[in-house]
Amino acid sequence: MQVAVRAALDYAVAAPSSFVFNIAAAWTSRQNVLQETLHIEPAGMKAVEAPATRGDNRLLRVEAPPGDCRIVYEARVELSPQIARAEALMQTPFSQLPDDVLTYLNPSRYCPSDTLARWALREFGATAEDGGRVEAICDWIGGRMEYLPGSTDERTDAVAAVVQCAGVCRDYAHIGIAFCRAMGIPARYVSGYAADLDPPDFHGFFEAYLDGSWYMFDATRMAPKERFVRIGFGRDAADCAFATIVGPAQLMSMEVSAQYLGGAECGRHDAAISTA
Amino acid sequence: MQVAVRAALDYAVAAPSSFVFNIAAAWTSRQNVLQETLHIEPAGMKAVEAPATRGDNRLLRVEAPPGDCRIVYEARVELSPQIARAEALMQTPFSQLPDDVLTYLNPSRYCPSDTLARWALREFGATAEDGGRVEAICDWIGGRMEYLPGSTDERTDAVAAVVQCAGVCRDYAHIGIAFCRAMGIPARYVSGYAADLDPPDFHGFFEAYLDGSWYMFDATRMAPKERFVRIGFGRDAADCAFATIVGPAQLMSMEVSAQYLGGAECGRHDAAISTA
Amino acid sequence: MQVAVRAALDYAVAAPSSFVFNIAAAWTSRQNVLQETLHIEPAGMKAVEAPATRGDNRLLRVEAPPGDCRIVYEARVELSPQIARAEALMQTPFSQLPDDVLTYLNPSRYCPSDTLARWALREFGATAEDGGRVEAICDWIGGRMEYLPGSTDERTDAVAAVVQCAGVCRDYAHIGIAFCRAMGIPARYVSGYAADLDPPDFHGFFEAYLDGSWYMFDATRMAPKERFVRIGFGRDAADCAFATIVGPAQLMSMEVSAQYLGGAECGRHDAAISTA
Amino acid sequence: MQVAVRAALDYAVAAPSSFVFNIAAAWTSRQNVLQETLHIEPAGMKAVEAPATRGDNRLLRVEAPPGDCRIVYEARVELSPQIARAEALMQTPFSQLPDDVLTYLNPSRYCPSDTLARWALREFGATAEDGGRVEAICDWIGGRMEYLPGSTDERTDAVAAVVQCAGVCRDYAHIGIAFCRAMGIPARYVSGYAADLDPPDFHGFFEAYLDGSWYMFDATRMAPKERFVRIGFGRDAADCAFATIVGPAQLMSMEVSAQYLGGAECGRHDAAISTA
Repeated sequence: MQVAVRAALDYAVAAPSSFVFNIAAAWTSRQNVLQETLHIEPAGMKAVEAPATRGDNRLLRVEAPPGDCRIVYEARVELSPQIARAEALMQTPFSQLPDDVLTYLNPSRYCPSDTLARWALREFGATAEDGGRVEAICDWIGGRMEYLPGSTDERTDAVAAVVQCAGVCRDYAHIGIAFCRAMGIPARYVSGYAADLDPPDFHGFFEAYLDGSWYMFDATRMAPKERFVRIGFGRDAADCAFATIVGPAQLMSMEVSAQYLGGAECGRHDAAISTA
Repeated sequence: MQVAVRAALDYAVAAPSSFVFNIAAAWTSRQNVLQETLHIEPAGMKAVEAPATRGDNRLLRVEAPPGDCRIVYEARVELSPQIARAEALMQTPFSQLPDDVLTYLNPSRYCPSDTLARWALREFGATAEDGGRVEAICDWIGGRMEYLPGSTDERTDAVAAVVQCAGVCRDYAHIGIAFCRAMGIPARYVSGYAADLDPPDFHGFFEAYLDGSWYMFDATRMAPKERFVRIGFGRDAADCAFATIVGPAQLMSMEVSAQYLGGAECGRHDAAISTA
Repeated sequence: MQVAVRAALDYAVAAPSSFVFNIAAAWTSRQNVLQETLHIEPAGMKAVEAPATRGDNRLLRVEAPPGDCRIVYEARVELSPQIARAEALMQTPFSQLPDDVLTYLNPSRYCPSDTLARWALREFGATAEDGGRVEAICDWIGGRMEYLPGSTDERTDAVAAVVQCAGVCRDYAHIGIAFCRAMGIPARYVSGYAADLDPPDFHGFFEAYLDGSWYMFDATRMAPKERFVRIGFGRDAADCAFATIVGPAQLMSMEVSAQYLGGAECGRHDAAISTA
Repeated sequence: MQVAVRAALDYAVAAPSSFVFNIAAAWTSRQNVLQETLHIEPAGMKAVEAPATRGDNRLLRVEAPPGDCRIVYEARVELSPQIARAEALMQTPFSQLPDDVLTYLNPSRYCPSDTLARWALREFGATAEDGGRVEAICDWIGGRMEYLPGSTDERTDAVAAVVQCAGVCRDYAHIGIAFCRAMGIPARYVSGYAADLDPPDFHGFFEAYLDGSWYMFDATRMAPKERFVRIGFGRDAADCAFATIVGPAQLMSMEVSAQYLGGAECGRHDAAISTA
């Protein structure tokens, strides 16, 4: 299955500024970047891609002179996800979690899972220890929250969002991550492109570690996750900004799109999907 | 119906200190203090009672010299509460609320009802606009919370307590007040003595304004509220400390008791009770 | 000294809504409303003023039918403030504070003074126990904070504002109140009209209880406080909303103005001023 | 220079429990573990050390049966730190920070540096862009905070601690990290053994990334940092628990010690020290 993605970002730069972009599609064994182009203006400016291991976040570093700055990323991506029924994916016992996965049980800036321990147990303590538990968390979030742009900002953590019963995709993901961690399931934030997202934008969702792999979940249910193209991952949105800027630069406009190009799909929109 | 109450407080005072005690039973048209005594040591020390209108908090002001300081309050109180079925008490429309009651719709230190607006609507939006709504809030709190001494402290507000699903009577009351206000029902904190409370202690509960009167509610359901003897009221526990101290004085021991002395009861423990 | 004030508020009302306005100038022994008019549209709609004791908040209650709703309040006010040097006003010892003033030492929704106790002592513990301490608090706030509209919202309390070093008049007042209370000085929020405020708007400031009276302080120093016309007061901004609305009504436009009409001034802009 | 360290932990295990200990001294090019022993009881129980790259946290995983469980770790460690004057260490410009260091600029659970951005600039904006800035941050923390065991708990983040002006080593480190990040200096939490710490305990401090290396800083100034033996590091204390437990096990007693065994020291206690 193929998806075409594109992001075009325009900045007004008042003085020399440093950018780190995290907008390029990740390379994984299940997500193959068939073709990609990066266009930047002004012409002399260079985007340096950090050497990344397979699966890592691909960081583009740009030093921008004063003036207008434009960066356009386009890619065609082949997805061949691992597919499973969520209920068939066992929650890995703590004693068997790989060492490098343990960190995704820890509370983080936007996912203070420690604060939600008792609440998690109340809501999900009776669910079976498998991927169905993560689906139950997503259902619960979807039922509780109102998708309300403007109701949260870059300070809002999962607790504030779940208390106010409103947020956007990033908040939905943070709440999902926090409850998963509180229930002993490692979880991490993923940024990406999502075909059929309306209005088009970067998307934020999350992955839970089940049966030895990272599986995608999206409590917003706003778009079919089998068509998600992953960009970056981290503990929460703090690790996945599409642009980190040091200097007086201002985003003037942003266009993001993702288009499903056809090809075999997994066939079941409710399947558990892994492209990690 | 009569209840005997007693509070004995011992302090070690390192340097001259000012106390304001709020431990005396309130005088209201439905709570008659038949007899009361105040014993203080050292003998020369004076407790000055502020002149209070009927129903007001009765503040005892004490200037304590260095040394040991002991205050013992005892009273016999006659209760003749107004009794009703909660469902029979209509929620007063905003436009008809008395001016001096409006303030109990505002958020306060421990009851930031503004933060819980959407949550309140989610949980209680479908309940009828009467006292049954307040009972539903109490039931919900009782079902959600674990009564866990030590889980909260004097900083904990209703939001922190409801998120962590644990607290003590004061937290239960704060949560009840916050949800009532969020649903348009004026609510205030009440401190008091509670017969049959185990272990004996001062108790914290709340009142909701329904059908022209303030009715008592207690989400802990730890003791029969018809035997509660009211002391003080306010927006939240910040207004109802049993002792406010300015100076280096330390509480060394505290004994609180309340004993039901017999007499006609309202007959139904689930009735709505007003002694305000 | 006379000041003319005016507030014109336009609402779009989608369904019958209840309003409580708190925009009328207070009557006190030092603030005399020489003349005032209230104009409301549609014509049939009534504004009922609650009977208020001298000095109280004057609440105007309006039941608005669907459609456009307009309320215009105009007044000419004579100010004859009590004037003093801040340093000449003693901080009243706790033991001598009137009972009804004690409540303004308690933490409130936006002024959680308990949280700031040690910080207050660090910054202001060495100042003399008089009105100069309140001036020192105002100076400190002015030096620390950036006046930045949009940096705070209706959820922001004094702690959040002082941590982020930015806010608006309401935040400046909340911080001042919180630090005063933490230092044992009763303090309350005041809303009002302020001549020479740019841009014109309702203003929020605070009063501290010193030497038996409430004196105005304004950490923003944006306008001369001797020309402030008081509207309402309370524990914090939660008690002083210019409009409380129950129903689907939306503020479409608002004009506020205050104009100094001449007359004797106190002569020193840095004097302590009381109109309470 | 050599330091001997020891940690003895006793648990009462009510049902089979999983432990991950992070108490072993790290191996780095500047910290050489000359000799170490691990003693565990009951005898049959195994501690599995995760294979760690040089410098990584060394995790010991233990599956404990019901009953008493005891783990004793002892090591003799050779330290050969990199030493410099703090002012001689340049702050690395954002554009030149290695990719894997960028993450330590992000806010984390206990170090919400985003919230402190403006405050950081106010306090440290005028300091030179070198290690002296980090020393200035440590001085500021030491001057502001009261070291007060019991004043914070495992929920307390840097903002809560800095507001209340009290905390313990962990809080001092969190505040230091948060302000460093806010000033553009990557910073991370380090747990370790500290010779001469009184009372003896695990210690928490932090490292700042300067001139291509991680240098240790300790705002508590409670012990000479050149004798610190590093255990683990991470974004904040959430990543550095000495024991993570899944199961009903309770810590019954804990003894921690570190003893300076002599050998060449860096000679200046105020030098910048790196053992990373």
